[in-house]
Amino acid sequence: MKTINYRYVLRLLGLLLLLMSASMVLAFGWAIFEYFFRISTWRQDMEIVRAFLVTMAIGGFVGGGLWFIGSTDGHFGKREALFLVSMSWLVGAMLAAFPFYFWAQTHVFVPFQDRAFLSFINCYFEAMSGLTTTGATVLSNVESIPRGLLFWRAFTHWQGGLGIVVIFVAVLPSLGGGGKKLFHFESTGIASDTATSNIKETTRILLLIYVALTVSQILLMKLVDPSVGWFSCITESFGTLGTGGYNIYNASSGRHSAPVQWVIILFMVLAGINFGLYKKVVLGKFRSAIKDTELRVYLAIIVGASLIIGVFIYGTEYHETTGALNNKGILSVVRDAVFQAVSIQTTTGSATANFDEWGLIPKAVLITLMFIGGCGGSTAGGIKVIRVIGALKIMKVELERAFRPSVLRSVRIGTHNVEYHQRISILAYVLGILFLFGVGSVLLMVTEQASGVSGTTAMAAAIASLNNVGPGLAGVGPLENFGWISGPGRLILSLLMVIGRLEVFAILVLLMPAFWRSH
Amino acid sequence: MKTINYRYVLRLLGLLLLLMSASMVLAFGWAIFEYFFRISTWRQDMEIVRAFLVTMAIGGFVGGGLWFIGSTDGHFGKREALFLVSMSWLVGAMLAAFPFYFWAQTHVFVPFQDRAFLSFINCYFEAMSGLTTTGATVLSNVESIPRGLLFWRAFTHWQGGLGIVVIFVAVLPSLGGGGKKLFHFESTGIASDTATSNIKETTRILLLIYVALTVSQILLMKLVDPSVGWFSCITESFGTLGTGGYNIYNASSGRHSAPVQWVIILFMVLAGINFGLYKKVVLGKFRSAIKDTELRVYLAIIVGASLIIGVFIYGTEYHETTGALNNKGILSVVRDAVFQAVSIQTTTGSATANFDEWGLIPKAVLITLMFIGGCGGSTAGGIKVIRVIGALKIMKVELERAFRPSVLRSVRIGTHNVEYHQRISILAYVLGILFLFGVGSVLLMVTEQASGVSGTTAMAAAIASLNNVGPGLAGVGPLENFGWISGPGRLILSLLMVIGRLEVFAILVLLMPAFWRSH
Repeated sequence: MKTINYRYVLRLLGLLLLLMSASMVLAFGWAIFEYFFRISTWRQDMEIVRAFLVTMAIGGFVGGGLWFIGSTDGHFGKREALFLVSMSWLVGAMLAAFPFYFWAQTHVFVPFQDRAFLSFINCYFEAMSGLTTTGATVLSNVESIPRGLLFWRAFTHWQGGLGIVVIFVAVLPSLGGGGKKLFHFESTGIASDTATSNIKETTRILLLIYVALTVSQILLMKLVDPSVGWFSCITESFGTLGTGGYNIYNASSGRHSAPVQWVIILFMVLAGINFGLYKKVVLGKFRSAIKDTELRVYLAIIVGASLIIGVFIYGTEYHETTGALNNKGILSVVRDAVFQAVSIQTTTGSATANFDEWGLIPKAVLITLMFIGGCGGSTAGGIKVIRVIGALKIMKVELERAFRPSVLRSVRIGTHNVEYHQRISILAYVLGILFLFGVGSVLLMVTEQASGVSGTTAMAAAIASLNNVGPGLAGVGPLENFGWISGPGRLILSLLMVIGRLEVFAILVLLMPAFWRSH
Repeated sequence: MKTINYRYVLRLLGLLLLLMSASMVLAFGWAIFEYFFRISTWRQDMEIVRAFLVTMAIGGFVGGGLWFIGSTDGHFGKREALFLVSMSWLVGAMLAAFPFYFWAQTHVFVPFQDRAFLSFINCYFEAMSGLTTTGATVLSNVESIPRGLLFWRAFTHWQGGLGIVVIFVAVLPSLGGGGKKLFHFESTGIASDTATSNIKETTRILLLIYVALTVSQILLMKLVDPSVGWFSCITESFGTLGTGGYNIYNASSGRHSAPVQWVIILFMVLAGINFGLYKKVVLGKFRSAIKDTELRVYLAIIVGASLIIGVFIYGTEYHETTGALNNKGILSVVRDAVFQAVSIQTTTGSATANFDEWGLIPKAVLITLMFIGGCGGSTAGGIKVIRVIGALKIMKVELERAFRPSVLRSVRIGTHNVEYHQRISILAYVLGILFLFGVGSVLLMVTEQASGVSGTTAMAAAIASLNNVGPGLAGVGPLENFGWISGPGRLILSLLMVIGRLEVFAILVLLMPAFWRSH
């Protein structure tokens, strides 16, 4: 094996920055729209437009420069793909952070307006949290931020959701084999069927499904409750489909009426399903899709978790995210239970209730759901349902080996036989996540020692970041934010987010000497 | 495969109870000795003698009955071995608990004397903690308990240390193949060499080494500080060699002078080493023994952990277990750091300093050491150094596979090549421990909700029990005890201890329907 083909990586990294800059036209357009029609409740001026223009200029200049010094000559292998993916997120988050930062630098803040974006590390955290579809925010008063920026903030979720690089592949027909490798690292799950099919075609279908689901949610939200503004429908859908959870309201999804909340629940569930199954449905293989083992377990977990939570919160007193006490009616309790179970398992992280006030058992269920996450090949984070099924089945077989060593047992998920080397991969992955959770928690306790952070808060922050959930418990609960965390702490959490999002492999491999060695 | 051969299991269980009853003669003898010579600071009377006599009668009656209705006819396979081992600990702990209970029932308590043994569940917890060499106690004032009972308490560590069943096998030459299977579940580590050698011979050598080490520690303690009483030397050695940690002083090992503490450190280190290596030394293969990879890593971890702890506690203020402030001298800080690192890694759990007062990093190091534990095939608990080495190497190879999928990499520990199925076993084991830790912590939080237990305390209690350490942090720290935990909570912890001690497989397999099914 040769040395890493840096020029190829730079070329594609440049292209990524150009594309991301171009995507800012949408947010930019919204800001101009707001500027001319004076829709926002906040005084809009040229600050927003300026911030986006400067960012786009930088993105265009740097991206173009990288494109120019790079080249598509030579080899593009796994190492190049991993290096590119890691760089895409680390550098991409920087570009995505600029609009927040430049706006804050030139803005004259009014009283009570959130000043978090004055610090670049805050902006970087916010952008990384957005692109990784985590949804953890440094803002304590989201509603005080101009809507052009809120649009961009929600849009980072949507971009991150199916993976920047999937979009990337779709618009770059020339990538070929390299694209396949990129796709491999971006898409999740152990039973991806991409190896056998046409990557370009698959990507297009997935994008189409993604767009169709987004548009459906926007329209359905507006349909069930016409009083919801279009801006809210659009940003909420970006956050839902990307399983991110950034919201334009301080009360998060709790601001919406019951029917709208049920629509959001539906689309969160849909976003947590393996997108490969939608492709099957599109290709007419509906029966095969609904027979999927992972899908069934995923839905069963949602129902089971909602039931347990519902039983334990029924009759108890807690606050909705709006600040009101829950009305204790059965319908509202069921809605809160289902909403939180789905939102946490799909790692969206939106909230209607302050679940930090719930009892021990509902909280333990939510923490478990954070680790489990959605289905492989979905936009959700976490360990993924398919790996959890796999790990449990493997451990059961291992226990049986203790008293029946002579019986060779296969591990099956649906019709798929999990081979020895796959078993090792699954177990190593789960162990890796738990290991990173442990290391992350301790590091956070160290960096936040000065503010006397509780162990619960540190661990919740690590879990919520690593699994791309967003809010956690205690000091980073649904009504709290990550703004109080120190700079080093926010950097650690940003790293956990991107490691979790890229399923551990990217970033971490860059730390191995063997990765850089040329053979 | 047929149904489980219950009669064979009952026969051996009966024998175990008879042997354990017989072993009480030692404690009984000590009590009589104390009674006649009035050595103790406490008023001794026939209570102790009576408690042991009643226990021995029960043990003799039940053990003899089981022996009588059982038989050694027929098959003795893995299922029988697992069932017997599980029952041995669950029932054995009950017998071992009786002396505490009967004493308390007939005793007239003096003021300030510890009344914990009035509850049978407390006695069961204490006996299970002893036999599993955990060393977690329900007593808040150990020194108020008569020495006959303290002798028995320390002796449970010594019995549990090398495994009741190793003794079992040594005195039962007729077991044959079944003995081999029992040995397999009792001894730990993945690289046991028992498959090729004579079990009876091996067991005898191991017992001899165990006794020799115990006697050496007793004599060496007395030698370096003649002011230490023989009773203290004997009980301290029982606790050290069994890596248990029960002590006759409220101040634990902190009561001793510096030279004695160093002797204890030395023997804790020795007890945490794979006893198979001592066998090699005895057989003249000294060079091969000291080349052992696990041994070297184990010693390296001790040195590294001691260094980190030492650096972070140097200059800080904390209390010794005696209640005095530490004198901040370099020698005393080094001794405390090394003592705690060794005591926790070998899962002994003795203390010279109240490490709960130490900073975050020393505490994080100690928690990590609790999980790592000693070497496989030693009397220590925890995941075991060899599995930790294995798991880390496997994960490294898995990471490398991400960018070099075509390169087949072997995982080597020393000269041993870790095959695929062994890799699965190692990872599944580590994951199982973490899983049990999670479940145990949540269950404890639920059972202790009434007393408002902190998450840290619940997790520390679960870690310390599952890994057979003994004391943990916060509410179960080195100066605290487990007496305040509720009945259900103590049952959960007892289960964690025995599951940890028997390396997960025993007990848990009994919960599987497949275990009971006859094929």
